[in-house]
Amino acid sequence: MALKFEITAKCGKARRGRLHTKHGIINTPAFMPVGTCATVKAMMPESVAATGAEILLGNTYHLMLRPGADLVEKMGGLHKFMNWNKPILTDSGGFQVMSLSGLRKLSEDGVAFASHVDGKKFFLSPEESIKIQHKLDSNITMCMDECVKLPADHKRVQQSTEMSMRWAKRSLDAFVDRDGYGIFGIQQGGDYQDLRAYSAEQLKSIGGFSGYAIGGLAVGEGQEKMFEVLDYAPDMLPQDKPRYLMGVGRPDDIVGAVIRGVDMFDCVMPTRSGRTSQAFTARGTVNIRNARHREDERPLEEECDCPLCQNYSRAYIHHLQKCNEVLAVMLLTWHNLRYYQRLMKGLRTAIEQGNLEGFAKEFYQRQSLGDIEDL
Amino acid sequence: MALKFEITAKCGKARRGRLHTKHGIINTPAFMPVGTCATVKAMMPESVAATGAEILLGNTYHLMLRPGADLVEKMGGLHKFMNWNKPILTDSGGFQVMSLSGLRKLSEDGVAFASHVDGKKFFLSPEESIKIQHKLDSNITMCMDECVKLPADHKRVQQSTEMSMRWAKRSLDAFVDRDGYGIFGIQQGGDYQDLRAYSAEQLKSIGGFSGYAIGGLAVGEGQEKMFEVLDYAPDMLPQDKPRYLMGVGRPDDIVGAVIRGVDMFDCVMPTRSGRTSQAFTARGTVNIRNARHREDERPLEEECDCPLCQNYSRAYIHHLQKCNEVLAVMLLTWHNLRYYQRLMKGLRTAIEQGNLEGFAKEFYQRQSLGDIEDL
Repeated sequence: MALKFEITAKCGKARRGRLHTKHGIINTPAFMPVGTCATVKAMMPESVAATGAEILLGNTYHLMLRPGADLVEKMGGLHKFMNWNKPILTDSGGFQVMSLSGLRKLSEDGVAFASHVDGKKFFLSPEESIKIQHKLDSNITMCMDECVKLPADHKRVQQSTEMSMRWAKRSLDAFVDRDGYGIFGIQQGGDYQDLRAYSAEQLKSIGGFSGYAIGGLAVGEGQEKMFEVLDYAPDMLPQDKPRYLMGVGRPDDIVGAVIRGVDMFDCVMPTRSGRTSQAFTARGTVNIRNARHREDERPLEEECDCPLCQNYSRAYIHHLQKCNEVLAVMLLTWHNLRYYQRLMKGLRTAIEQGNLEGFAKEFYQRQSLGDIEDL
Repeated sequence: MALKFEITAKCGKARRGRLHTKHGIINTPAFMPVGTCATVKAMMPESVAATGAEILLGNTYHLMLRPGADLVEKMGGLHKFMNWNKPILTDSGGFQVMSLSGLRKLSEDGVAFASHVDGKKFFLSPEESIKIQHKLDSNITMCMDECVKLPADHKRVQQSTEMSMRWAKRSLDAFVDRDGYGIFGIQQGGDYQDLRAYSAEQLKSIGGFSGYAIGGLAVGEGQEKMFEVLDYAPDMLPQDKPRYLMGVGRPDDIVGAVIRGVDMFDCVMPTRSGRTSQAFTARGTVNIRNARHREDERPLEEECDCPLCQNYSRAYIHHLQKCNEVLAVMLLTWHNLRYYQRLMKGLRTAIEQGNLEGFAKEFYQRQSLGDIEDL
């Protein structure tokens, strides 16, 4: 077994687990901050670890362009290069490449594309993607697949899913199995139950995967539709392997997905929001640029133990924002990542205590309260 | 006595001292990082402290505009507002205001100007500047003066220096003396020895200053001319008080000035350079954006104990720069501030050991070697 996964508690469909990798254990349900270009934007890696993150996501597309997989390999792998000694998951690069409008050409073999940086031409195939992820020394390699934007008709999704399953086999065949490293298959099928079932069966029959991603969601279908798919899709996957919902999401998306049996998440939202003045709190989002914070001596969130909330007033963060100071981005990113990790910790504890329903109820109630200003 | 200053060792004209303030001791010779808008750009305050900095400089001009002195006072002062519990020195704001071309009008009374942020009109007088610095809770308040750009003729510098001395008296009169707080007089006189002597005598006859700045240098006159003035200007000031060379400078400027009896420095160079890819090292400056660093596994500086040099390769920092990642700015700023503090520590130790000449000789030799790449 490439990656060992233990489930230590269950609550309904939700699972509390531990995924063992060469670079350490990931407690699930887990949230993975995104470190696109070998850095979580505006964070020191030791600060990312201090938020409670146990695994990062790296983007194969960005890293293959800059600095290039060969250079990262020469530098001893991505962990050493970016000074992050905990586990790393890399995506296949396929999703970003296929988002390059007008610059790419898709075939059964793979995708030809031009770099958004300098126009240089590349060809990404399942085999090439896996090879790059190997050079990066990724603990969790993702299969290369095609991800269809929803809504899409059944035929389109079926054809795409069938190709993704052929690509899954090619990805697995290209993967070099090592202890503490693994490859995840990706279930596709859009919002069609039959295609989700087909995809799950294909992946199971290929075998050899250390975990399964639920792909093709959070692509414009809305939360209601996403939850509808999550009501059945995770159940089709092996019970004893971790399930990863790619690119999700907002805090309320995550709570709903954990309840439906998802174990892993990644999203740029906490880091990106840190760069646009938006903070996540137990009482919903707060935009610190708003003038009402100008003279507010209170911390952003009383209960939070991050440096922003421990050491600064809302007035100070507001001031930094107005002056476009980098420290505002640094502190807000830290707070947001810490908020996400506190949420995951809360979910893990609730599962252990068999109280996920109560946790979720309180979570949704508090989110709807609005910022303390409005009390 | 408002601020106690002890001199614990001397070496030639150079002095090793300790300046006691309400917020702690400053070991001199000292370098003060600049925290213009209540933040040292791209640094957490605890990281600034970790570089060895014992005092920051805050800019009255920027703070009076944003967030405003009244707000900072309401928030408990600048230390609390920005989470920096060590000493703070503030400039008078005069230098920045008078640099606003076309937007200001100078008279004996003070300077009328329009904010560069929103065009709002302000009037800054010596009394108003001291009042603002008081509201900020600055440990070391600076007199408001006029600083003439060099070269300038004798009559122009004389008239300006005479007004600055009248302003020094008005500044001192407006200062509220408290234990652990002090006000520094500023010697002007350009590069005219008679006017430097006149200015020093005037300040001494006013009395009541906890220290003396040497103003009006590093304004375009070049290092040779600056050292020429520093060969006599510091000697004119009281021996038992700290001497502060405003806005200086490059590492070699600082070494030369310490030899000539200067105790305190501030400069935006280490922080600003951190935002333009330039790193200070014992072997001179290095631009990490240069392509020769692309595959360089070595640390920027073997002997440096900052996070950049301890945890990353030149290749990684080069990569971050190419991708315009904030972390590059964070790490380079940290390294540069640490380089400056290591230099100051070296100077202090050399004075204690009576070996300043040997230290300086080695310093200048190594600076001229060029980066290790060229070995």
